[in-house]
Amino acid sequence: MNKHALSHRLSAEALGSFFLFAGVLGSGVMAQTLAGGNLAVALLANTVATSAILYVLIEMFGPISGAHFNPAVTLAFAIRREFAWRDVAPYVLVQIAAGAIGAFAVHLMFDLPILQFSGRERAGIGQWTGELVATFGLVLAILVMLRHRPGVVPAVVALYIGAAYWFTSSTSFANPAITIVRSLSDTFAGIAPADVPGFIAAQLAGMLLAVGCARLLLGRSES
Amino acid sequence: MNKHALSHRLSAEALGSFFLFAGVLGSGVMAQTLAGGNLAVALLANTVATSAILYVLIEMFGPISGAHFNPAVTLAFAIRREFAWRDVAPYVLVQIAAGAIGAFAVHLMFDLPILQFSGRERAGIGQWTGELVATFGLVLAILVMLRHRPGVVPAVVALYIGAAYWFTSSTSFANPAITIVRSLSDTFAGIAPADVPGFIAAQLAGMLLAVGCARLLLGRSES
Amino acid sequence: MNKHALSHRLSAEALGSFFLFAGVLGSGVMAQTLAGGNLAVALLANTVATSAILYVLIEMFGPISGAHFNPAVTLAFAIRREFAWRDVAPYVLVQIAAGAIGAFAVHLMFDLPILQFSGRERAGIGQWTGELVATFGLVLAILVMLRHRPGVVPAVVALYIGAAYWFTSSTSFANPAITIVRSLSDTFAGIAPADVPGFIAAQLAGMLLAVGCARLLLGRSES
Amino acid sequence: MNKHALSHRLSAEALGSFFLFAGVLGSGVMAQTLAGGNLAVALLANTVATSAILYVLIEMFGPISGAHFNPAVTLAFAIRREFAWRDVAPYVLVQIAAGAIGAFAVHLMFDLPILQFSGRERAGIGQWTGELVATFGLVLAILVMLRHRPGVVPAVVALYIGAAYWFTSSTSFANPAITIVRSLSDTFAGIAPADVPGFIAAQLAGMLLAVGCARLLLGRSES
Repeated sequence: MNKHALSHRLSAEALGSFFLFAGVLGSGVMAQTLAGGNLAVALLANTVATSAILYVLIEMFGPISGAHFNPAVTLAFAIRREFAWRDVAPYVLVQIAAGAIGAFAVHLMFDLPILQFSGRERAGIGQWTGELVATFGLVLAILVMLRHRPGVVPAVVALYIGAAYWFTSSTSFANPAITIVRSLSDTFAGIAPADVPGFIAAQLAGMLLAVGCARLLLGRSES
Repeated sequence: MNKHALSHRLSAEALGSFFLFAGVLGSGVMAQTLAGGNLAVALLANTVATSAILYVLIEMFGPISGAHFNPAVTLAFAIRREFAWRDVAPYVLVQIAAGAIGAFAVHLMFDLPILQFSGRERAGIGQWTGELVATFGLVLAILVMLRHRPGVVPAVVALYIGAAYWFTSSTSFANPAITIVRSLSDTFAGIAPADVPGFIAAQLAGMLLAVGCARLLLGRSES
Repeated sequence: MNKHALSHRLSAEALGSFFLFAGVLGSGVMAQTLAGGNLAVALLANTVATSAILYVLIEMFGPISGAHFNPAVTLAFAIRREFAWRDVAPYVLVQIAAGAIGAFAVHLMFDLPILQFSGRERAGIGQWTGELVATFGLVLAILVMLRHRPGVVPAVVALYIGAAYWFTSSTSFANPAITIVRSLSDTFAGIAPADVPGFIAAQLAGMLLAVGCARLLLGRSES
Repeated sequence: MNKHALSHRLSAEALGSFFLFAGVLGSGVMAQTLAGGNLAVALLANTVATSAILYVLIEMFGPISGAHFNPAVTLAFAIRREFAWRDVAPYVLVQIAAGAIGAFAVHLMFDLPILQFSGRERAGIGQWTGELVATFGLVLAILVMLRHRPGVVPAVVALYIGAAYWFTSSTSFANPAITIVRSLSDTFAGIAPADVPGFIAAQLAGMLLAVGCARLLLGRSES
């Protein structure tokens, strides 16, 4: 499935998760600091930075590790038998650990306490529906594009997330690893630790829906 | 004309219309909520989200259904005999129905009443001229690019609509299905039900003008 | 040099100039109306819309007419003997005439008087230097990219103008035809008629500098 | 390594550095002038203009000079033996000199004193960490993409810098030449001369880290 050694692939996942999570959180801090209360401008800046770094990282690390940076994506490939189940745990652990280091780097850069927990509540039917819809669309987009036109996956994923920041009520985390890491940052993009399980459950439900939907739309991956 | 079964094509149109209309309406709700009265910032966010999701969906579903998501586009292809007339009605019905579900999903996500009607008046010579110009340009761009360089249709359509949100006085609906569905949402991107027929008439006039113009510029599609 | 009949090429230049000038002026009107005094947000929206429609129109009409929409570009190609001198006058007349109709369409759409003249003064060493630098960079970018990688000309021109709106003090008209047409619109993107000649002189100087610079950098076009 | 004469390559570096540095500084002046105190909007405009002109210039001059515009990039290639050490000094001098002329052109365009020094303090662990992370990511992105997919280097570099403006506390200068030139401009994007050495040291450390990381990830450049 992939010719690179596992250590190389994990290094790529680590570097990508570090920069992705630092990008999401750091641009949130900068945006909130500068926006002076105009949250639409802050989210717009957060969107532009997130989409841009996501495009860059998928171009950079896609050929090495697949550029998942997201346990929901890793699991979707494993369920479709396009990724070895024995590599799922190392991938997910690296995504969370390297992403957390990205959060700590942001706190260091912006002179904030390194260790902190978010106090921002994010829960309820509306928010969970948002995460389900967001993750469903993300995983479906990846599976469909890998079949039709794999070269544009970086642009498609980056722009999908950029749009979903705005059209879902939860601002589209769509990623269990980033959900956990965001709980470690009491900043613009944070989420209270108690609200993490609800988000992850909705994300996994959306992922499973996408895998089923892709099977109907595209047939089995072997076909 | 298209090797996919009608059921697959209708599924693709349904998924695309769901996400497109949810993207347009949801980003409008989020933008208006956060912008605190600065409508330029709100429309800018609405523009970025709409263009981004449009690019994504045309890349995803173009190879399956043609990614119309728009009765004006479906009709233009039928008039040019590049689309079977018998498939027009199913396409249009799916676009409206799945788009309406997208609107309901937005209302659910943002804790709004599921069923509602827009009170936002949009009418008059200026607005209708806007819709005519917007739809003329959209359909012409699609027909010209499919001839010259089909691979960039997703980028061209996404960026055309992004620009037309700003340079037409009507913010460029350019789509009879989304016009109907927007009347079901009393939010930023809504339109009062009584103003829907005027918009659709202007859109169809613009579409017919584009089909005629493309014939002069490109010759008949068979040539 | 170009297989299309002159009438087809002029039609393409007319359609492109109509939409480009309508895009520039219309997005300026919309942006100023909505921005409520925040001129940075207004110019940002004007920038996004201009870059987007410019990309679309060069993709659409490049293969037919070359997609100049700009007398400075037409003249640069004529000087380099890549465009017939006898076609310069028809091209330039069509660019101005169709662009003016684009301005009138904007006034119609936004319920403004169709015929008007701008009262916005734009003159002085700083502004003229801005136009010289802007047009120099634009023409150089076109000539260099046509040699190296013609497929990205639409993106390069669109993004160059988007950047130059911000880094030149004149907001980068860089186009004698659009300078004339902007004098017919007393809106955000206008220019007082008396200031038009100074702008055009600076633009032509920048164009000539670019043609000379391209000869040094790339050699003669025949080589 | 490169078939172009050194004089041509230096001309390309000069033109590119002139427009890049004028783009960064000029858009900063325009943005701050128009934004009326909303620094998030100002940085967003600065970001859009910088990313756009960076994409344009790398497309234009990449095939001629490599489009470094950055001593950290020139040094990284020299360390990897992909660039002749004897050409490093001319490249770096041209980057600084032409970039400074770009700054003077901005001051001329915006009716500011030509010669000036920035009074904006930028120092401390947080800022230096920002420069180290920013330059590490930039150089790593360039080295990885040149191996995997060189055609997208312009987009990757442009979008990386656009994101890094937001996720690093220092707004990502990531370039010793632009750091020096920014000290010559008492405007939005400036830096006090006394703070230049700290920034450059952090940038070179980030560059060395990226060269080492690329060697582990990609192997030696000869392999």
